[in-house]
Amino acid sequence: MTNTPTNWTDIPAEEVYPGITRQVLHGERQTMIRYVYAPGSVFPEHHHPQEQITTVLTGQIEFTVDGHDVVFSAGDTGVIPGGTPHGARVIGDETVETINSLSPRRDAAPGPGN
Amino acid sequence: MTNTPTNWTDIPAEEVYPGITRQVLHGERQTMIRYVYAPGSVFPEHHHPQEQITTVLTGQIEFTVDGHDVVFSAGDTGVIPGGTPHGARVIGDETVETINSLSPRRDAAPGPGN
Repeated sequence: MTNTPTNWTDIPAEEVYPGITRQVLHGERQTMIRYVYAPGSVFPEHHHPQEQITTVLTGQIEFTVDGHDVVFSAGDTGVIPGGTPHGARVIGDETVETINSLSPRRDAAPGPGN
Repeated sequence: MTNTPTNWTDIPAEEVYPGITRQVLHGERQTMIRYVYAPGSVFPEHHHPQEQITTVLTGQIEFTVDGHDVVFSAGDTGVIPGGTPHGARVIGDETVETINSLSPRRDAAPGPGN
């Protein structure tokens, strides 16, 4: 941490799927990712070796985790174990914002959504 | 992650210092902590081996990290390397809410603020 903190609004946003932006902050041991999902957007199923802890800050989104559907509303949080297939789709009309912590650190991925 | 997500409002809150509550969610590789600080509250300097990534969701708070003062406002984020002394005090009149990811996992601490 330097004497100038980083604001999430200043971290470059990459559109990884239509209507879904990703911003990334790396530590040495973990990677924090902020996703913003427009209403109607869909994040296809994928998986990665890192454990992921997701907190939904706004809106409502349905995750599919290892084949099971789970609805997350604002304030909801959960752990997705490393290697577990997961995807997500916005339900309702609100923009969804999530904060996700991945550990170990997840370096730049080769393609969208990875 | 089960089929029932956890809402942060349902996770037990422990008052670790006057006006400061802590809620904890453990993964295997990381621990997520939500702190809520009342106006005027102070978190004494401490340190732990885990790396910490803090995001401030509401209010304004001054951290002292390794002897340097850093003001965080809503949306600000930063990495505190493992082992680095840090403390915090609320500035302004707003309640401060932070989400903190620690890695490796930080098991139950022996005392307040640890």
